[in-house]
Amino acid sequence: MVWKNFDLLASYEALKGLDTVDVKTAMAGENGAKRVAEYKIPMSNGMVYSYAAKQVDDKVLDTLQALADEAALTEKYAELYNGAVINTGEGRLVLHQLCRGQLGNDVIKDGENKREFYVSQQNRIAEFANKVHNGEILNEKGEKYTTVVQIGIGGSDLGPRALYLALENWARANNTLKMEARFISNVDPDDASAVLATVDISRSIFIVVSKSGTTLETLTNESFVKNAIKAAGCEVSKHMAAVTSATSPLAGNPEYLDSFYMDDYIGGRFSSSSAVGGAVLSMAFGPEVFARIMNGAAAEDEKAKNPNVRENAALLDALIGVYERNFLGYQMTAVLPYSQALSRFPAHLQQLDMESNGKSVNRFGEPVNYQTGPIIYGEPGTNGQHSFYQLLHQGTQVVPMQFIGFKNNQMDNDLDIQGTTSQQKLSANVAAQIVAFALGKDDENPNKYFAGGRPSSIIVADKLIPETLGALLAHFENKIMFQGFVWNINSFDQEGVQLGKLLAKKVLAKDTDGALTAYSELLSIF
Amino acid sequence: MVWKNFDLLASYEALKGLDTVDVKTAMAGENGAKRVAEYKIPMSNGMVYSYAAKQVDDKVLDTLQALADEAALTEKYAELYNGAVINTGEGRLVLHQLCRGQLGNDVIKDGENKREFYVSQQNRIAEFANKVHNGEILNEKGEKYTTVVQIGIGGSDLGPRALYLALENWARANNTLKMEARFISNVDPDDASAVLATVDISRSIFIVVSKSGTTLETLTNESFVKNAIKAAGCEVSKHMAAVTSATSPLAGNPEYLDSFYMDDYIGGRFSSSSAVGGAVLSMAFGPEVFARIMNGAAAEDEKAKNPNVRENAALLDALIGVYERNFLGYQMTAVLPYSQALSRFPAHLQQLDMESNGKSVNRFGEPVNYQTGPIIYGEPGTNGQHSFYQLLHQGTQVVPMQFIGFKNNQMDNDLDIQGTTSQQKLSANVAAQIVAFALGKDDENPNKYFAGGRPSSIIVADKLIPETLGALLAHFENKIMFQGFVWNINSFDQEGVQLGKLLAKKVLAKDTDGALTAYSELLSIF
Repeated sequence: MVWKNFDLLASYEALKGLDTVDVKTAMAGENGAKRVAEYKIPMSNGMVYSYAAKQVDDKVLDTLQALADEAALTEKYAELYNGAVINTGEGRLVLHQLCRGQLGNDVIKDGENKREFYVSQQNRIAEFANKVHNGEILNEKGEKYTTVVQIGIGGSDLGPRALYLALENWARANNTLKMEARFISNVDPDDASAVLATVDISRSIFIVVSKSGTTLETLTNESFVKNAIKAAGCEVSKHMAAVTSATSPLAGNPEYLDSFYMDDYIGGRFSSSSAVGGAVLSMAFGPEVFARIMNGAAAEDEKAKNPNVRENAALLDALIGVYERNFLGYQMTAVLPYSQALSRFPAHLQQLDMESNGKSVNRFGEPVNYQTGPIIYGEPGTNGQHSFYQLLHQGTQVVPMQFIGFKNNQMDNDLDIQGTTSQQKLSANVAAQIVAFALGKDDENPNKYFAGGRPSSIIVADKLIPETLGALLAHFENKIMFQGFVWNINSFDQEGVQLGKLLAKKVLAKDTDGALTAYSELLSIF
Repeated sequence: MVWKNFDLLASYEALKGLDTVDVKTAMAGENGAKRVAEYKIPMSNGMVYSYAAKQVDDKVLDTLQALADEAALTEKYAELYNGAVINTGEGRLVLHQLCRGQLGNDVIKDGENKREFYVSQQNRIAEFANKVHNGEILNEKGEKYTTVVQIGIGGSDLGPRALYLALENWARANNTLKMEARFISNVDPDDASAVLATVDISRSIFIVVSKSGTTLETLTNESFVKNAIKAAGCEVSKHMAAVTSATSPLAGNPEYLDSFYMDDYIGGRFSSSSAVGGAVLSMAFGPEVFARIMNGAAAEDEKAKNPNVRENAALLDALIGVYERNFLGYQMTAVLPYSQALSRFPAHLQQLDMESNGKSVNRFGEPVNYQTGPIIYGEPGTNGQHSFYQLLHQGTQVVPMQFIGFKNNQMDNDLDIQGTTSQQKLSANVAAQIVAFALGKDDENPNKYFAGGRPSSIIVADKLIPETLGALLAHFENKIMFQGFVWNINSFDQEGVQLGKLLAKKVLAKDTDGALTAYSELLSIF
């Protein structure tokens, strides 16, 4: 496989030479309707990706196809899922997709079939969760557990938390909320205190999640929680479990109810599909629901194999993002889900994208001469419409947008008010916003004038259920992977985050280097 | 008062001609320590604003002072608080600061002293809240209320929600959590359903908040909640109150327990200081706590009068932001509070800033030739350190950062683990990050090399209590106001948000214009 910097590809030059598409013109009148009908891709699980309101036309799409072919993007994906060392910086395989299904050849590593390893851990978790749910595992007083609390930070927190919140109300409405889940992440001691103040410790299981078993925040919060368990008159060994690597100091700790394992081939931000997400979500919703999330993701992983950019939503989404970043000059993307249940999904994507592709060197450690990963942020609509959309509509800079919408809401509870249901209002709003961003609005009053031409795409699903949630997760993971391939960077290490961990340790050991005199002075403000 | 476009000022040219300060050099060694000692401003309530790690030196500061003087920024602030029509687009006064204290002359408008009006509403709210707390107002069964639920969106939601979450745990620890507060905002029916599923309706008071009394989402959710109240066998009139303008359809509704009033001179995003924040926060924490927030804000408003940029934190913060936006070319700012309690404060600031300054025309409706408001986003540290900080450290673009830190945590519950408390770890982390962003790190491995030179500032407070929270709120409001003055834009209207409201109404009336054929096609995807 040839890995070349983006700006050395013929398609880079071809993209540079293209005329810029004006979304305002493209989306107007009958032509706009025609674009919407044509510029969409069926995804897995009945979902649709619509890119009609993006700055592309057939010429741009053909050139993006040429880029996909020249950079061998789907071939690189195949290398990845067949077990190549794609994470060159750390010399590791990249196997988060393998957690969800077998996409290609068997991957044998460390003397074991990795798919079998992941399945075996999922099975161990399922058995444990079922025993907790059916009362085979009880607390010291012989009572059932009601709450599961995840103690983790970064990827051990944001992804599992976003997925939990996405399905919490759906699970409640469908009688599959087995245990409420809570999350402790921040080293800020008020975070742990606040969570502990609102759970019944005697009926809670705390899952300590750290791949290395050495994450400062997590170990600190573990001690904090252990103290609280003892103060509540309970036994630590009846209230803690671990998710960690088999070689970490946390593994097989006799103080824990049980330990579940992950390996080095799944980065934190991709670990929702591993035991990191599996344990807390299986305990909260039941293992069947977690399996449904994984099935939804696996179906989308399959779709991502297609080399045709007009049929592969993750691939085209990735390529349009690259085009926007490197040729249209946009520095960021706003992720705008029209579903309150996805309130923390943008925060998860922020980590996923910015931690993966916020790099300045290529996979060989050489500086690149082009922009890489964008800034990602977002909030659910319609809330954002009443807030920062002002700048998106009328600010001096263009921010590309990625909408997510649903045909139906999660709970059957909806009301017809003034002739439409709330869900109809929600769908009408997102469609109207896409059109308004594209077409703008003329007005004699310059204050009420909207230039339009602001590009967006949307993913539409029937309903936010485990399968579609899994597919959304996989879509964005695969989009980011393809972008990393185009930029020729390693999307799977995170030295910027490692620096933070290193600094914290140095600082706490009072080893702050002679050079960092500013640091002591800064601390004196505190 | 002369209002001129920024690029017509002599100081604009002067700023353009300045040498760029290299933070990496400036913050190294003894000089760095000296900068930290010098480049800070005492704020109100014992707080400190440190700008040592920003790309400024004495020359830049002098030129920013010249800009402040030439653009008459503090004089414009005085015009505002003395009652001039600063919101030219809508022909309105701008009086959110006046809610918090008398800063200048009496403001007489609509035949009343506006300060007296705000105080009278705060007093009415206090009386109502006290009666609810002491049991003079009870539900239909003669029971005390335990929960207050705010129904509002945009400014009626984000600010009050951020402030509530900021003090919830502090209030719990200090026995001043009188009622738990919840928030319903999204027109997504699952939002209301989810909140209703977790409160005891019979012991809840729902506050409907809409200045106009016509906000689609809020009225829809009001109907939704009314239905639920009836379904729970309760009387609507025992469970609802309103915050609205005196002339709105919601005002004085006999179906409500009571109505509290705001006026046209406080925009939604600035309305936390008005009855919009006052009602829910007084009910949740008691009126005395709300008064303490206001006092903290008023003290910071006083500080913002100082024309000396080296002594006025809001003014200098604003000017450095302008310098970064228009001369250093940065498009965004990350807000990074090291306190879990401030988890939604960045979302509030995102609205506050992007809705205020995301404009392309000046206050006379003429297009401006320079960039205006930046994109704002953020998450609490240390969580962000394990996530998107990767891009902030090693990405291809520089993102200026605004840290917020505290000397002490909110609750006394902290533990010494491995020689330091969690709060010490938290403070050490933020100080270490500031230094690491500024100085970077050399490494033979290019993957572990950090260029540094990434600018940040920090506000440090003793503890997140009502006064410091109010001061933080006022700081950012005043910062944004000063930036709007520099850019010569109207920071107090929001036509981009109005468009969304208009569209939603048109769409629901099936009046989608002949031109918007793309819209119907888009809806057909749903």
